[in-house]
Amino acid sequence: MLENDVFRILDRQECLRLLAKVQVGRVVYTQQALPAVLPVNFSLDEDASVLLCTSAGSDLVRAVDGAVVAFEADEFTAATRSGWSVIVTGRASVVTDAAEHERLSRTGPHSWMPVRDGVFVRIEAELVTGREITGARTTR
Amino acid sequence: MLENDVFRILDRQECLRLLAKVQVGRVVYTQQALPAVLPVNFSLDEDASVLLCTSAGSDLVRAVDGAVVAFEADEFTAATRSGWSVIVTGRASVVTDAAEHERLSRTGPHSWMPVRDGVFVRIEAELVTGREITGARTTR
Repeated sequence: MLENDVFRILDRQECLRLLAKVQVGRVVYTQQALPAVLPVNFSLDEDASVLLCTSAGSDLVRAVDGAVVAFEADEFTAATRSGWSVIVTGRASVVTDAAEHERLSRTGPHSWMPVRDGVFVRIEAELVTGREITGARTTR
Repeated sequence: MLENDVFRILDRQECLRLLAKVQVGRVVYTQQALPAVLPVNFSLDEDASVLLCTSAGSDLVRAVDGAVVAFEADEFTAATRSGWSVIVTGRASVVTDAAEHERLSRTGPHSWMPVRDGVFVRIEAELVTGREITGARTTR
């Protein structure tokens, strides 16, 4: 990776500010020993952990509850070849505490997908990394 | 996963048509036993495999050459809570054949990032899946 005038590493605060701007990201995890990814809408909790809402019996819940996952969001503009991406890496867990579930039912994300017996999944923001590209020229 | 009037599975041809519309996707792989993801610009080859260009000595090449990876692209519109996502799963490999490298230098993707000693990585389109959501109402 070459860092130079078209590529910049973002600090944690910049990353969280950018994450808060978008509504969709991608959960990256392992399923049956293969890399797996699922786009979801999300929100950030007060402690910067990523929150999403899905069905209690979903494949996603089975695959990620208790596991370390990555969560990626980005925005790119093809015309200028510029944009940013942020990756949160941390442990994912289903929210089982009743009071916490109740709080998130009021303040947390509403799934864009139909869900059955909805649960909240929290991804702890243990590691937050990001980068920005600002119009790279074509290179090989 | 509930399939209904706001959620639809896409067939392979629909997926490939949508993939061809966008320039950025995300390589999903495993690095040091953890889920990893990297957004990259890409193009589709004639056989529908995903092509990207990166530095020969990059962490990405070390992690994915010879491994099965996922590649995800999507487009969502927050205002209407609609959009699509496509995931290609297959073996990734660095293009080592000189004639093939030469062909891709003419027809393949140009990296938006600065690269050093550029190589092409091909992800075979062994499994292509996708889904579309068309304005889910808020659900829990």
